[in-house]
Amino acid sequence: MNKGRRVAGMLLLVCSLQAAIAQTKPRARDLGVPFEGTPGPLNAITDVKGVEVGHTTLISGSGPLRVGVGPVRTGVTAVLPRGRDNSDPVFAGWFTENGNGEMTGTTWVEESGFLEGPVMITNTHSVGVVRDAVIAWRVKHGQPKESEYWWSLPVVAETWDGWLNDVNGFHVHPEDAFHALESARGGAVAEGNVGGGTGMICYEFKGGIGTASRKLTEKQGGYTVGVLVQCNHGSRDILRIAGVPVGQEISEDPAYPKDRGSIIVVVATDAPLLPHQLKRVARRVTLGLGRNGGIAGNGSGDIFIAFSTANSGAYSYEHSTTPTMMANDQLDAVFQATVEATEEAEVNAMVAAQTMVGINNHRVIALPHEKLREVLRKYHRLR
Amino acid sequence: MNKGRRVAGMLLLVCSLQAAIAQTKPRARDLGVPFEGTPGPLNAITDVKGVEVGHTTLISGSGPLRVGVGPVRTGVTAVLPRGRDNSDPVFAGWFTENGNGEMTGTTWVEESGFLEGPVMITNTHSVGVVRDAVIAWRVKHGQPKESEYWWSLPVVAETWDGWLNDVNGFHVHPEDAFHALESARGGAVAEGNVGGGTGMICYEFKGGIGTASRKLTEKQGGYTVGVLVQCNHGSRDILRIAGVPVGQEISEDPAYPKDRGSIIVVVATDAPLLPHQLKRVARRVTLGLGRNGGIAGNGSGDIFIAFSTANSGAYSYEHSTTPTMMANDQLDAVFQATVEATEEAEVNAMVAAQTMVGINNHRVIALPHEKLREVLRKYHRLR
Amino acid sequence: MNKGRRVAGMLLLVCSLQAAIAQTKPRARDLGVPFEGTPGPLNAITDVKGVEVGHTTLISGSGPLRVGVGPVRTGVTAVLPRGRDNSDPVFAGWFTENGNGEMTGTTWVEESGFLEGPVMITNTHSVGVVRDAVIAWRVKHGQPKESEYWWSLPVVAETWDGWLNDVNGFHVHPEDAFHALESARGGAVAEGNVGGGTGMICYEFKGGIGTASRKLTEKQGGYTVGVLVQCNHGSRDILRIAGVPVGQEISEDPAYPKDRGSIIVVVATDAPLLPHQLKRVARRVTLGLGRNGGIAGNGSGDIFIAFSTANSGAYSYEHSTTPTMMANDQLDAVFQATVEATEEAEVNAMVAAQTMVGINNHRVIALPHEKLREVLRKYHRLR
Amino acid sequence: MNKGRRVAGMLLLVCSLQAAIAQTKPRARDLGVPFEGTPGPLNAITDVKGVEVGHTTLISGSGPLRVGVGPVRTGVTAVLPRGRDNSDPVFAGWFTENGNGEMTGTTWVEESGFLEGPVMITNTHSVGVVRDAVIAWRVKHGQPKESEYWWSLPVVAETWDGWLNDVNGFHVHPEDAFHALESARGGAVAEGNVGGGTGMICYEFKGGIGTASRKLTEKQGGYTVGVLVQCNHGSRDILRIAGVPVGQEISEDPAYPKDRGSIIVVVATDAPLLPHQLKRVARRVTLGLGRNGGIAGNGSGDIFIAFSTANSGAYSYEHSTTPTMMANDQLDAVFQATVEATEEAEVNAMVAAQTMVGINNHRVIALPHEKLREVLRKYHRLR
Repeated sequence: MNKGRRVAGMLLLVCSLQAAIAQTKPRARDLGVPFEGTPGPLNAITDVKGVEVGHTTLISGSGPLRVGVGPVRTGVTAVLPRGRDNSDPVFAGWFTENGNGEMTGTTWVEESGFLEGPVMITNTHSVGVVRDAVIAWRVKHGQPKESEYWWSLPVVAETWDGWLNDVNGFHVHPEDAFHALESARGGAVAEGNVGGGTGMICYEFKGGIGTASRKLTEKQGGYTVGVLVQCNHGSRDILRIAGVPVGQEISEDPAYPKDRGSIIVVVATDAPLLPHQLKRVARRVTLGLGRNGGIAGNGSGDIFIAFSTANSGAYSYEHSTTPTMMANDQLDAVFQATVEATEEAEVNAMVAAQTMVGINNHRVIALPHEKLREVLRKYHRLR
Repeated sequence: MNKGRRVAGMLLLVCSLQAAIAQTKPRARDLGVPFEGTPGPLNAITDVKGVEVGHTTLISGSGPLRVGVGPVRTGVTAVLPRGRDNSDPVFAGWFTENGNGEMTGTTWVEESGFLEGPVMITNTHSVGVVRDAVIAWRVKHGQPKESEYWWSLPVVAETWDGWLNDVNGFHVHPEDAFHALESARGGAVAEGNVGGGTGMICYEFKGGIGTASRKLTEKQGGYTVGVLVQCNHGSRDILRIAGVPVGQEISEDPAYPKDRGSIIVVVATDAPLLPHQLKRVARRVTLGLGRNGGIAGNGSGDIFIAFSTANSGAYSYEHSTTPTMMANDQLDAVFQATVEATEEAEVNAMVAAQTMVGINNHRVIALPHEKLREVLRKYHRLR
Repeated sequence: MNKGRRVAGMLLLVCSLQAAIAQTKPRARDLGVPFEGTPGPLNAITDVKGVEVGHTTLISGSGPLRVGVGPVRTGVTAVLPRGRDNSDPVFAGWFTENGNGEMTGTTWVEESGFLEGPVMITNTHSVGVVRDAVIAWRVKHGQPKESEYWWSLPVVAETWDGWLNDVNGFHVHPEDAFHALESARGGAVAEGNVGGGTGMICYEFKGGIGTASRKLTEKQGGYTVGVLVQCNHGSRDILRIAGVPVGQEISEDPAYPKDRGSIIVVVATDAPLLPHQLKRVARRVTLGLGRNGGIAGNGSGDIFIAFSTANSGAYSYEHSTTPTMMANDQLDAVFQATVEATEEAEVNAMVAAQTMVGINNHRVIALPHEKLREVLRKYHRLR
Repeated sequence: MNKGRRVAGMLLLVCSLQAAIAQTKPRARDLGVPFEGTPGPLNAITDVKGVEVGHTTLISGSGPLRVGVGPVRTGVTAVLPRGRDNSDPVFAGWFTENGNGEMTGTTWVEESGFLEGPVMITNTHSVGVVRDAVIAWRVKHGQPKESEYWWSLPVVAETWDGWLNDVNGFHVHPEDAFHALESARGGAVAEGNVGGGTGMICYEFKGGIGTASRKLTEKQGGYTVGVLVQCNHGSRDILRIAGVPVGQEISEDPAYPKDRGSIIVVVATDAPLLPHQLKRVARRVTLGLGRNGGIAGNGSGDIFIAFSTANSGAYSYEHSTTPTMMANDQLDAVFQATVEATEEAEVNAMVAAQTMVGINNHRVIALPHEKLREVLRKYHRLR
């Protein structure tokens, strides 16, 4: 195990470098894909002040699958609503468009209205280890007093990377969750083959992590909506980008014949929304996925969570508090921003991801940038 | 139709008198039934300040059923969260333990978090007329500006009174809904064979409207929780009162062999609860019904709505507002009050209701007070 | 009132003629809009065998609004899963993407898994009258034995037509619901300004009723999925047709500045789906609306119901039955068909609808066909 | 770690012996507590043919808490719907009365209608390790073909045992989950301080695992309903047993001042119910808990799952199947059985559990049997 850890360690280094150069890679907008709305400065979930993202990327081995050995193409992504401060829960709501997946902790999110820690994303068969690791990490940092009633119900989601990764080899360990938490930062977010998204496949192109944001006008409240996706769903032929039937135009090298994937979407905003309003926001994610052609196949876990960093201090054990609530009639701008940022984040994931070879030499190609531009041009949609 | 109206008018007079003397009738506590917790001054939903209740009671005819003629044993009950002021919606949440019933308007309650008008209760086949009448009543009172975007999605619930009432005769008319709204008052609430509860049957005893309340201690916040039920469910043998198997002890004169009924429960409170917290409150109603032995039979529409009169002004079309939110960790007292008041309100309905003969000479007996006391004494539970 | 009835009668005649010629009008495909998948012979919900649709269209008056007098631009649409046979309920499921609307009867659909009668669609303030009328219609036809336990919880949905119609004038009467039920037929379905869709507005073009269908391949099971929408939502700028930003390209004559509408969607299929599977189908409607650019604004009641005409005889009062259940893993074709047919049905509604002038001379333009073709051509999407 | 394992091993031996003698201990009925309905031969969830239960009980150490060392009072319980056969999923449905807890895997249960493996119950902070262990156990047994698309979303629930157990010490290991799975058997079920229930507290008495069953009459279909609870909720004063206010009568030695617990309930039946019907069954559990006085406090995770062992073969990857569906109108007997068996299973848990001393010498007393009989006698309820 030690050796694996060491190898992973080296890879983490590599991946940190990757992250450093991540933003030198073009994003969907840079390629001329037209989107509506105005993004924030980073066009990332981290445009919402306080939100931090960390990745642990595990890549090692090649060739035939040996369960427990590799090849490994997986990881963990952590989204921290208020950075490492767990003492100030955020309001949250969640929604499932298709439930072939897991997001632990949601029963309590639904009941309490609060998200009390990070949102973690990993592969399907490592949800458990990451879940308990989040608790261990908090215990390690001394937060709960040992003598007191303290419990935690971490939020951990997943998509399945078994086409490229030795998913039954359980290669994610508690330290990998710790690393994702501890490396979380504001600023630009690495996209593509990183973190939980390392081994993911999206519309039969290489997928993974993608992000985008929208900034509302001052008249709309000036709020920011940020979206992060771990994209792993869709069959090629239905893919639309900016409304253009890209999947039909770029039909080469399909990954596999059937929609097997899932998509986890995290929506962050600083708009002052109550839990039931955040549930409404989470439900709009479906509309953004619809723009890209998604059908939420039976095999897909399309699970979304939305939280608001407004209303710091809304949680209290003892006292009533007075959170701010945005008027329902003013929510359309937030809904539209959610739809738009979801649409763009998913395309960003595909644009950022690079061709990957995994177990049994399964190869999944990146969305070819030049070809994409050609197709957009053909349909008069190249910006 | 005119004559029916006139007869109904007379009956309304009778019923108003009934209401006047309602509180001279013994209630469950007066008979020595032991309950936990401390009720408000009226032990009624109207202990929650601002809440008003109005009834229209329609009783006419006797003998064989002639559809469209009678006999009539039905009515309408109106619960107004802030009296006749519709300009200040209350937060609300709802829950269905068994959905063989109707409560219109709940889709918008769930989505918006607000209850924007009264809660009306009537018989199953008169939901529509009452629903549109609530809109007509608001239009008549000039609230919506004609030239503007205005719509209403009234909340109207029902239970089925076809064992005693000519339910397919559609004897409820818009004026009956208007009257329930216009006669709504604070103060003592008429119980038993009144309003929507007129023809209802509860555990095969005569049922109908019942109410109760609980006052929290100052340490718990000093809030009030009030409950109103329209009780029409249950088979005799499972009825427990104060834990005592009353239904098994009083087996005479069962109404009919199968659980056909429903129960609508309205919970009001002045505790400052957000919509998702009110949904939690609504869900506790089931536990109160469980104490009385309920099983939520397939034929039962067990539908509950909870609202809070706190947070006046929380609704705004344009601006953010700052409602007060009670701490989740302090909610147990509210939950317990809801369970206790539900338990008592249902027993109050049966204690208040009087033996009734309806269509085809169907006869449903009142819960016999003296016999109830005997049974309680036998089980050492007579207070 | 009589005169209004008579006028309405004449209009009904007109509308029947309209219906007769309905299919001579071009539909979206005829204009060259590209859609995916293979429609059934009628490209309508009635491609699902047994499904019948009836409309009552009420158009009278012009000029300034006089509440209770007119102008009237409204109606009722009835969708009958098995024609006029109410003795054989169909499995059904429903879903709300945004709940600013009403669909009565859904609590029982959710609980029982069955839809026991028609789905009716009308305007917001006429839900009640239509709901009770459905019961009256069944009573009139002698279905319930008077002496027995019988109740009905009709499914009635709505969208708001108050921009063109005197919605607070309550112009829909029981006979209008009867007529929609009694005129229901298989075959081609009238679209646009008919039935419940008469006064509706979609993406600020004239909207209303639209329909489409998809036929699965034999390998996929050979089933049909049909969709009918009553379309009344959306702001112009976000409208996409076949992925093309049509709303941005055709910006003239917007109806009003804010998304006020709703969309009711009925999905019918003969695929043998259980209730929980039909709920999944209903949830896919959102993805179809997403393709057209929808954001499910706060003011929108986006409520969907899906039913299956397979499993005739699944309902029994006494005996267990053995319905057929399609394998979950084979559902993707049904999901995709639902998304595609929803996308097309909504465009069909706009293509069929004609410019209408309503109350206070409010005028809503039809989607201009030639202009649409130009825009599609510009984006290389004219078929 | 090895040493802990060895100690645990010894304890497992002890516990197996405990299990062997489990049924020589009196159960609630043996003490004269009156319940309604007719239990199956074992009065246990295992009366439903094919259902197996296994426990791993971990007890070691005493004295002050040292996190990571002990004392340990925890475990794992496994409920296997069809024994160790995972190839034949059962229909299932779930419900949350209060969501302060975790039950993983439920999103897929809700979506698919199937429960595809065991239901595991452990402590709050060991859900993850047990969850992944269930996957590892299946991988180890060679079920998934390595080269194929295979994933698992195990169902693992929890209640919090941190008053007696070093819950932040993570003492449950994968082998403990394996052992619970491998030791699962039909026949009598050990109750009280065993398995996941080892360190649990119920109405401030020692709680844990309890079970009961009901057998329907032949006329009702002859089906069996079995319930297993892991009981860890409730404050003393509200406890009712057979309707008698036992909590008020036995007020000595309360465990702690506030309701901190949870209750997980598993309902098994051989009645042929579809997923949406099993959801209805799960929802009835609340009514059973209501009989015992429960209020579903804010700190409680009251999460229930119901499955049916009927319809073997209902799951198919490719083909449609024809499951049997019980008529909705015949479900009342199943509902009543669920309520009754829940009520009794919870009392059985308390009757079976023995006084335990855990971390920091926290001591929780067993429900005193003789005292219970006295109280029942006082209230004329001793059978």
